[in-house]
Amino acid sequence: MEQYNGLALLTDMYQLTMMQGYYKHFADRETVFDMFFRRPPFGGGYSIFAGLETLVKIIENFRFTQEDIDYLKSLGLFEETFLEYLTTFKFTLDVAAAREGDLVFPNEPLIRVEGNIIQVQLLETILLNTINFQTLIATKAARISDAAKGKPIMEFGLRRAQGSNGAISAARAAYVGGVGATSNVLAGKLFGIPVKGTMAHSWVMAYSSELESFEAYARQYPESTILLVDTYDTLRSGVPNAITVLKKLKERGITDFGIRLDSGDLDYLSKEARKMLDSAGLPEAKIVISNELDEHIIQDLERNSVPIDVFGVGTNLVTAKEDPSLTGVYKLVAKKINGTFESCLKVSNEPSKITNPGIKNVLRLSKEGRIQGDLIFLEEEREDVIKLASKGKPLTLHHPNYDYQYIEISDYDDFKLLLNPVIKEGKCCIPLPALPEIRQNTLNNLQTVDQTYKRHLNPHIYKVSLSEKLKTLKQELISSYIKSPD
Amino acid sequence: MEQYNGLALLTDMYQLTMMQGYYKHFADRETVFDMFFRRPPFGGGYSIFAGLETLVKIIENFRFTQEDIDYLKSLGLFEETFLEYLTTFKFTLDVAAAREGDLVFPNEPLIRVEGNIIQVQLLETILLNTINFQTLIATKAARISDAAKGKPIMEFGLRRAQGSNGAISAARAAYVGGVGATSNVLAGKLFGIPVKGTMAHSWVMAYSSELESFEAYARQYPESTILLVDTYDTLRSGVPNAITVLKKLKERGITDFGIRLDSGDLDYLSKEARKMLDSAGLPEAKIVISNELDEHIIQDLERNSVPIDVFGVGTNLVTAKEDPSLTGVYKLVAKKINGTFESCLKVSNEPSKITNPGIKNVLRLSKEGRIQGDLIFLEEEREDVIKLASKGKPLTLHHPNYDYQYIEISDYDDFKLLLNPVIKEGKCCIPLPALPEIRQNTLNNLQTVDQTYKRHLNPHIYKVSLSEKLKTLKQELISSYIKSPD
Repeated sequence: MEQYNGLALLTDMYQLTMMQGYYKHFADRETVFDMFFRRPPFGGGYSIFAGLETLVKIIENFRFTQEDIDYLKSLGLFEETFLEYLTTFKFTLDVAAAREGDLVFPNEPLIRVEGNIIQVQLLETILLNTINFQTLIATKAARISDAAKGKPIMEFGLRRAQGSNGAISAARAAYVGGVGATSNVLAGKLFGIPVKGTMAHSWVMAYSSELESFEAYARQYPESTILLVDTYDTLRSGVPNAITVLKKLKERGITDFGIRLDSGDLDYLSKEARKMLDSAGLPEAKIVISNELDEHIIQDLERNSVPIDVFGVGTNLVTAKEDPSLTGVYKLVAKKINGTFESCLKVSNEPSKITNPGIKNVLRLSKEGRIQGDLIFLEEEREDVIKLASKGKPLTLHHPNYDYQYIEISDYDDFKLLLNPVIKEGKCCIPLPALPEIRQNTLNNLQTVDQTYKRHLNPHIYKVSLSEKLKTLKQELISSYIKSPD
Repeated sequence: MEQYNGLALLTDMYQLTMMQGYYKHFADRETVFDMFFRRPPFGGGYSIFAGLETLVKIIENFRFTQEDIDYLKSLGLFEETFLEYLTTFKFTLDVAAAREGDLVFPNEPLIRVEGNIIQVQLLETILLNTINFQTLIATKAARISDAAKGKPIMEFGLRRAQGSNGAISAARAAYVGGVGATSNVLAGKLFGIPVKGTMAHSWVMAYSSELESFEAYARQYPESTILLVDTYDTLRSGVPNAITVLKKLKERGITDFGIRLDSGDLDYLSKEARKMLDSAGLPEAKIVISNELDEHIIQDLERNSVPIDVFGVGTNLVTAKEDPSLTGVYKLVAKKINGTFESCLKVSNEPSKITNPGIKNVLRLSKEGRIQGDLIFLEEEREDVIKLASKGKPLTLHHPNYDYQYIEISDYDDFKLLLNPVIKEGKCCIPLPALPEIRQNTLNNLQTVDQTYKRHLNPHIYKVSLSEKLKTLKQELISSYIKSPD
């Protein structure tokens, strides 16, 4: 399972045909592209950035194999000189990005890529494939973590995930988003995520009776016995048999055990099971539940004070069932002409698809540990913006689409920049944080989000706005394109 | 990009812990498991089976590396003898399955796996991961192909697919389902699927004018010029500039060209663009459209006779947006006790989760090339069932859940068995069909489905029923479990 090698052709055909065109006509053209998304997934009030480490490793390990070149040659579209160029191709571009686990919002740049147009163009597809999916799943996981209020969550969606890597990437991103463990052993091996498991119905059915199957399991794994109680009849057979077995473990001084409910009315069954376990003198027995859970069901169960200790979440987490793709895009924002960067803009027939031009960064303001708003500004005004922010001066935030709307924020006590250098000339230039550290970053960031942004239905919309200068640039470019398209 | 190697740990943790239990207690226990799904994806009337070749190659190449064993050892749950057993582990099981491209329906076995319980248990997760996703996407693609009424469809969902393999598997499955080409170059290389591409907005923006960018593209790729016309203003700038460039190509005798619309009202814009192209003397110019298409939108466009020649479908196809997972499961149906197979059943608190017991196959009846119904029967009654079917005798089909409901089918002129041997003792025992042949199987099969099953909303439900013997066995087992769970 090579994760980061052999992916050079994991790209859209048009990237390669465009590259050949660029190679012949302006091979030295410097450009800047932004990655951003347009719509928050799940109708949510925040998203969690993820996938950067994966992307960095792909960039560092990127090369075309001879087999790749031979395949491209067989397509009959590429010239010898261009194929020759690809054989020694390496990324030498610069990347600035948010940190994994950072809160991110629509229409602000999450990644900024600068370099030769040939390279920057080629990176598009694999960057989007990596970041779109991991950011989507980390966001879903964060919503689920938040709903579970600190109770442990286990991811076990592998069997219904979208392909092998759909499962592996999802396990990584789910952990980034706050989930505590995965059932996916390969993800455990690759990323060091804790792996956990209970038992399947087939275990119970393989024995001549449910009780016998429970006894066999407890004999084999006395230290981690979680018994699946819904194979035949949860309350009349499963729980009573589990009690018999768990009591014997308790007599031996073992108390790290429990039961798992995987079907039926989880609210009713867990309350009944809890009573039965308690009456049997097993208050330590944990109740693990699973079966098509998501953040909405978990929030409901928590509001009803259902006695559940661990949530197992599968399909709805790893496929992001409600909304299985992030609308991330990657757009040209500047190109160097005669030594100077010119800002670019895509107009489009749909106003929501108009991009924010220029080489930008994002200033995030906060007050008493709560985030207040994000200001997208041009890197050329960086010094001024930071000077103002350092002094706590009022900052003007312009609405990205309605030019008459703006607000002033003066009530902040801290700020930070969202985009920071990650790759210089194709090499990672920062120490990449370990996965548990990234996960902690997510959990810390969730504390900075006001409850109003966390509502599942109609959350408050976090302010992402433009600086005066950026707003003016955008308007000028729109007018110039609309007046004289060619 | 190793597709079939290094996947031994792509499994749920509990498979390995259960395996260790089986290994110690009944290492020679023979079992049979069925793979089936419970609910048709997209609320549709049919599904397309896919992913079998991928699964066969995974089974044939399966082995634990030393690195895998070391990792498992580090978890502290596995005994030396069991780890030793894994180091030489190979699948030696038997598999019978539907063919890729076959129509499949809820609750009937699509794959039947027979062998040692240790092996059969281990196969569960990777089998489901592979078959669930590819069957889901092949089904989505077939629905889209059907809506497009034979017009070419191109898949380009890579950038929003769920991970690298989510994209690669989706490209394969989309082709199985009838899509004609992919933008995914790696999928093209791995599977021989035709690869296609047009241009991105960044190509247009990289040049100093739209016209210049179109001219540069036509110069580079005169034989396949599809110009993206919505970067600035589709009808006022894009289409007129495209006409200028395409006319020059036509003067040179080239006519395999067109335009692509990627935003706005595709119905209105394609009709206007068609008029403009025709008035300019370019009736050959194709119109390619894209932008969040799915079978519903395509069906609508086709009903409105919109002049579109090629559909580009991305996100909604490769993530199966409406319904991003197939509910496929893998259940124990028989175990050998003292030399004889005993049928098993999972009862569950949810009636819809009760399984069909025993070693089964499926007889599909058809009349004048149209499928009429599927009969699930026990392999032990195979000879009798085939004898009846060969003579065209009436067959009784019992409803899988309501025991008072049954029908008799006598009006059929052909039949076939759904499950046929694919793997014997761990090795593929049939010549696997090439991908274009599989795709043709899908397209042929779609012809056998009555229009009433193809409705997007409330399709007719295809009959999948039980033989008398199977129905009786199921009822007896349910009663026995409910009366005496333990």
